Amino acid sequence: MKTVIAALALALTWAVAPLALAQTAPPLPAAMATELVAANRILVNQGVIDVRGHVSVRDPVNPNYFWITRAIAPGLATVADLQAFDLDGKQVGGVSGEAYTERFIHARIFKARPDVNSVVHAHTPSLITFSVSDIPLRPVTTAGLFAGDGVPIHANGLVGEGIHDMPVGDSLAAKLGGKVAVLMRGHGAVIVGQTVRTAVGRAIGLDLNAREQINLFSMPGKIDYLVPPPGAGKASGNYDREWSWWMHQLDSH
Amino acid sequence: MKTVIAALALALTWAVAPLALAQTAPPLPAAMATELVAANRILVNQGVIDVRGHVSVRDPVNPNYFWITRAIAPGLATVADLQAFDLDGKQVGGVSGEAYTERFIHARIFKARPDVNSVVHAHTPSLITFSVSDIPLRPVTTAGLFAGDGVPIHANGLVGEGIHDMPVGDSLAAKLGGKVAVLMRGHGAVIVGQTVRTAVGRAIGLDLNAREQINLFSMPGKIDYLVPPPGAGKASGNYDREWSWWMHQLDSH
Amino acid sequence: MKTVIAALALALTWAVAPLALAQTAPPLPAAMATELVAANRILVNQGVIDVRGHVSVRDPVNPNYFWITRAIAPGLATVADLQAFDLDGKQVGGVSGEAYTERFIHARIFKARPDVNSVVHAHTPSLITFSVSDIPLRPVTTAGLFAGDGVPIHANGLVGEGIHDMPVGDSLAAKLGGKVAVLMRGHGAVIVGQTVRTAVGRAIGLDLNAREQINLFSMPGKIDYLVPPPGAGKASGNYDREWSWWMHQLDSH
Amino acid sequence: MKTVIAALALALTWAVAPLALAQTAPPLPAAMATELVAANRILVNQGVIDVRGHVSVRDPVNPNYFWITRAIAPGLATVADLQAFDLDGKQVGGVSGEAYTERFIHARIFKARPDVNSVVHAHTPSLITFSVSDIPLRPVTTAGLFAGDGVPIHANGLVGEGIHDMPVGDSLAAKLGGKVAVLMRGHGAVIVGQTVRTAVGRAIGLDLNAREQINLFSMPGKIDYLVPPPGAGKASGNYDREWSWWMHQLDSH
Repeated sequence: MKTVIAALALALTWAVAPLALAQTAPPLPAAMATELVAANRILVNQGVIDVRGHVSVRDPVNPNYFWITRAIAPGLATVADLQAFDLDGKQVGGVSGEAYTERFIHARIFKARPDVNSVVHAHTPSLITFSVSDIPLRPVTTAGLFAGDGVPIHANGLVGEGIHDMPVGDSLAAKLGGKVAVLMRGHGAVIVGQTVRTAVGRAIGLDLNAREQINLFSMPGKIDYLVPPPGAGKASGNYDREWSWWMHQLDSH
Repeated sequence: MKTVIAALALALTWAVAPLALAQTAPPLPAAMATELVAANRILVNQGVIDVRGHVSVRDPVNPNYFWITRAIAPGLATVADLQAFDLDGKQVGGVSGEAYTERFIHARIFKARPDVNSVVHAHTPSLITFSVSDIPLRPVTTAGLFAGDGVPIHANGLVGEGIHDMPVGDSLAAKLGGKVAVLMRGHGAVIVGQTVRTAVGRAIGLDLNAREQINLFSMPGKIDYLVPPPGAGKASGNYDREWSWWMHQLDSH
Repeated sequence: MKTVIAALALALTWAVAPLALAQTAPPLPAAMATELVAANRILVNQGVIDVRGHVSVRDPVNPNYFWITRAIAPGLATVADLQAFDLDGKQVGGVSGEAYTERFIHARIFKARPDVNSVVHAHTPSLITFSVSDIPLRPVTTAGLFAGDGVPIHANGLVGEGIHDMPVGDSLAAKLGGKVAVLMRGHGAVIVGQTVRTAVGRAIGLDLNAREQINLFSMPGKIDYLVPPPGAGKASGNYDREWSWWMHQLDSH
Repeated sequence: MKTVIAALALALTWAVAPLALAQTAPPLPAAMATELVAANRILVNQGVIDVRGHVSVRDPVNPNYFWITRAIAPGLATVADLQAFDLDGKQVGGVSGEAYTERFIHARIFKARPDVNSVVHAHTPSLITFSVSDIPLRPVTTAGLFAGDGVPIHANGLVGEGIHDMPVGDSLAAKLGGKVAVLMRGHGAVIVGQTVRTAVGRAIGLDLNAREQINLFSMPGKIDYLVPPPGAGKASGNYDREWSWWMHQLDSH
């Protein structure tokens, strides 16, 4: 928490500083910038992303722009690290510096899914497990109900390569379709939401569901899967109480 | 520990402060309030409950009342967060603010089980695992002996929904019967005890037993289950030594 | 480390203070007392014992006496908590206060095994797993080689009860025989050594071996067990380098 | 981080201090010494090595020399603990004190593999698991792609003994061949790289891959292994972003 607040203070300084690269996007509002930084750190702290995952948010004014940190370890993110891109993955604002080559994941999903305002890309071990198995990831806990419409698997070649250009980004977005998550074969997963908190909460919930499902398979007997009605992922989840706890854990870590 | 003590000091201040809502229940004695707050934090610290679990205690004077925190993350609980309810789930004391919609779990079990003075509701992964399996949870360690009479599963619809009203609360209490724990399909578990320490100790023990049983199923061979005599859960366990350690762990965390 | 050193300072004070109970045993030398306290804390810190495990050391002067803490959570042990018992489990020195009812484990093994100078009793989950399975615990890592002569299982009734008197203690010691460890059905394990460091190091190694063996069973295929020559547990292991690291971890925890 | 920096300061002092043993190797440049110390601590902090693992780096001037800490717990390493050896395992520089008896692992691999500049030896539980199984370790995540050419198993007798002389070191190096890792039956693994960061990053990635593969085997269904082209381990990986995060975790631990 202290780190996040310090990062915010730093952000306010940065907000008035001239930037080296030509910009067209006005800065992300400070509250949203702080929330995006917190999302990065929470996902790391909860074990969902590691040093190569990322989370983005759609610009609240221009829906063709989105914000994400520059290519750093997300556990080190501050609001001074944010960059803005358009839906073709071209930088339109924020700090200069190396950009994530996988920003096309975010760009093309924001393009294809106007209802989505936040995208998480993670290499969570439990989700990679399901990405190379023919056992489907299915809800076994209320924390994973939102995935009731299924979690498809996108394969990028033979080696679980990342998404480094627009065509493969479009392919991934097509595989995601109207669902809330897509697995990436041998690589990771993408989870989307109407808000940053929803995307983060779902990423944490999907990992939990996957781990419980792996436990279930280590036992004999029949799994009594939950059967949510179609469209379980349409409504935005409320993760405010979780957020207060995850922020506290950041602080006491 | 320091946090808990600070919370107690805050509680003493609160105890003499006028409350906004009309009350009929006198405050919970400070020692019991402190113990209930500690129970919340211990269950979080030991990995048994997360941001949506809760623990309650029956009022020592009026057996038709019980105490529980308002709807917050239990890891953040202080004695200033306590609310009192009657056995129909109507608030009768404590602070104002949002109440747990799942308070009917506690209300209806306190109604049905006069011998029970504390109720834990948890979404422990190991217990959710057994809640969607046809493999019964059975004692494999002395820490789980109290569950020797069996742990039934209560199903609430197809999606592991929580308990948000009296009729479903009564249904859950009926499934619990005279036992010490009931699993909630795809959702979690409820564990009861004659004291707060017993309910907390049993919740931690049941999680441990479930994890060991999952390990056993990952091996071939035959499981040599423990066979406690009927009524193993009738006597209140003594968890005082555990409590001293869990309190220490809170402090050093 | 700091806690351990402070505990030692406290011990020196205690050593000259008159004790309430009549004593026949002179105090344990300070260095040995400090090492025994460290053993308690290391075993907790490494996840091998919890709030109900214990570790003892034979008195260096009188081989019919041994030292162990009074009945407290071992993570809280200080040298001011040490008690001495004879091999019938009668207190002969140290502080007054509640004694472990399971001290007969230690007493009767020290009686039966003159070569043993330290005994660990643990409820390690991985070891309880093997205690209720017909799959034998066998070496799969050099850390578990000392158990090459096999780890028998002692059953105490149907419910994994502890060892609370001399006859059952003798039964356990008989099951242990000349080996380095014995599992207690549904309850835990006992690990012995020629020194405190050896007993502690073996307890940590046996847990590691058990967890790796459980992993192996979750995979198909054949396990290529290690085949140590008979008597692998006869020689005392050298755990000095491990000890330096475990002490450091206590300090930085 | 602070510890590492303090260690560096200490190293600068040491660098000018006369050493007891006759030396032929000039000191390792300070930046490389600091990196090697960090590698030790990172591997411990990430759970890949424990108290008996080690990591080495080839001398940048004399390719027939390499550096490694003296025989201490690697989590306690400082730059004042470094020793230099030639490719026969004879000390040629650095501090006096006990040397790792397993230094022949490093010596003989540096001898056999001129392309390798860093060697990690670890007793990682997940890797020991595969070392005593006939299930081959294969890539299921991009983090393990570098092992696409296979990970052979070297057996040293019946008890998973370490590598304590040149002939067995040569045998291990022969089993490694041109690959990036070799398992040691019942003992551990060796992972090599063109740089310290590559060897460390691969060791962490191989552990992750092994753990995910174990998860996969606990599920029914077919594993869709990644199929990297031959020579996946030829190119040095870029682990700079990971390194920044692992260093941060050292600091905040």
